[in-house]
Amino acid sequence: MKGSLLYEGKAKKVYTTDQPQQLILSYKNDATAFNGKKKDAFEGKGRLNNLITSKVFEYLHQHDINSHFIQSLNDTEQLVHQTTIVPLEVVVRNVAAGSITRRLGIEERTPFTPPIVELFYKNDELNDPILNDAHAYHLTDVTESELMQIKGMALEVNEQLKALFKDVGLQLVDFKLEFGRVEDGSIVLADEISPDTCRLWDIETGDKMDKDVFRENIGNLIETYENILQRLEAYTCAK
Amino acid sequence: MKGSLLYEGKAKKVYTTDQPQQLILSYKNDATAFNGKKKDAFEGKGRLNNLITSKVFEYLHQHDINSHFIQSLNDTEQLVHQTTIVPLEVVVRNVAAGSITRRLGIEERTPFTPPIVELFYKNDELNDPILNDAHAYHLTDVTESELMQIKGMALEVNEQLKALFKDVGLQLVDFKLEFGRVEDGSIVLADEISPDTCRLWDIETGDKMDKDVFRENIGNLIETYENILQRLEAYTCAK
Repeated sequence: MKGSLLYEGKAKKVYTTDQPQQLILSYKNDATAFNGKKKDAFEGKGRLNNLITSKVFEYLHQHDINSHFIQSLNDTEQLVHQTTIVPLEVVVRNVAAGSITRRLGIEERTPFTPPIVELFYKNDELNDPILNDAHAYHLTDVTESELMQIKGMALEVNEQLKALFKDVGLQLVDFKLEFGRVEDGSIVLADEISPDTCRLWDIETGDKMDKDVFRENIGNLIETYENILQRLEAYTCAK
Repeated sequence: MKGSLLYEGKAKKVYTTDQPQQLILSYKNDATAFNGKKKDAFEGKGRLNNLITSKVFEYLHQHDINSHFIQSLNDTEQLVHQTTIVPLEVVVRNVAAGSITRRLGIEERTPFTPPIVELFYKNDELNDPILNDAHAYHLTDVTESELMQIKGMALEVNEQLKALFKDVGLQLVDFKLEFGRVEDGSIVLADEISPDTCRLWDIETGDKMDKDVFRENIGNLIETYENILQRLEAYTCAK
């Protein structure tokens, strides 16, 4: 049973439930980019990101990745374990795209072998600045062994998701993860995994099939996300 | 014997010599800040930075830090071993000051225990962006063991210089190092160590006694640098 609103973020609302350590995430139709400087709303986006995230977290669960995800409840809501979020955004990059191309002068589509892991400080006022490990220890309560575990999990998620998306004709370019601590203190994957948080390029055409269609005004966001969901559903049914 | 001009940077000119693996560094009077956005020239600054750097490198040599420094030649020039510079600026921070306060929202004078090591990509066009280790491996030819050695040397230099400056009444807040490879491939400390590349605060008054007097227009650069040189000379004579 859905309780009171606990928190509202840019893309999701968080509600309490009648279970003390369980929350409901309600996906919104809002889209934001460039740290909130570009904003819009797309009817149906909340449903798509909820259903895509649910498919992805179910897949990761089957591949032994511990996450906060319990189950999808309806079109726009999912039940998750309550976590205390580690205030880091963990980005894994297989191919150069987005901010790293401008920041480091690396041409878009340059491959990274091995993949590059980046940490950003979750802080809107500071525009989510990039961190090294020493900064993360100073600014957060993450320990050295937790940070190693987080990076290791991020790379394992990368391997699993590269395989999943490849099977549906998509190249996983990069993605952003968040992690949280559950009641016993252990670290689990949290937040969402959707075309809002991943870059996905069609393997045959090279077309961008993610939030870059919104960032760069190069396509219809809802049609694109619907296409991603349909590919994942067809894959699940074929299994 | 001084040969032809090999390279001119913002603060130094580099000349060949009649020895194939030795160069002369000639310190200029120019001061630049904020990646070259603020510029000026100060009569006598080249002499001060050459003599201060020479004192510091001699001290580090006595404390078993391998560097490119051979000897001071005259007021503004020093003889060094030729190196291939690793295109990284290695910053060690004992106390928060400068860019990190704005970038990460950390109050000036916050202590860092342990000290924070940061890597920046030496690239004026990109405004010397901050890097993590994975970026450094992608953008430069530095190996994992070389990067560990560079960070270890930077922390050892920090310990030595904290002690040196403390003995002359100065707190070593932060500093920037560069490293290079000599002919046999081994890594040595290179570039300069001066009030242009260190933040030094008077232990008794808290006064800034480094390039921040130029950056923040809060004092006379030449008088400040002359004071630093006099303290180091008095310390050397007392030993």
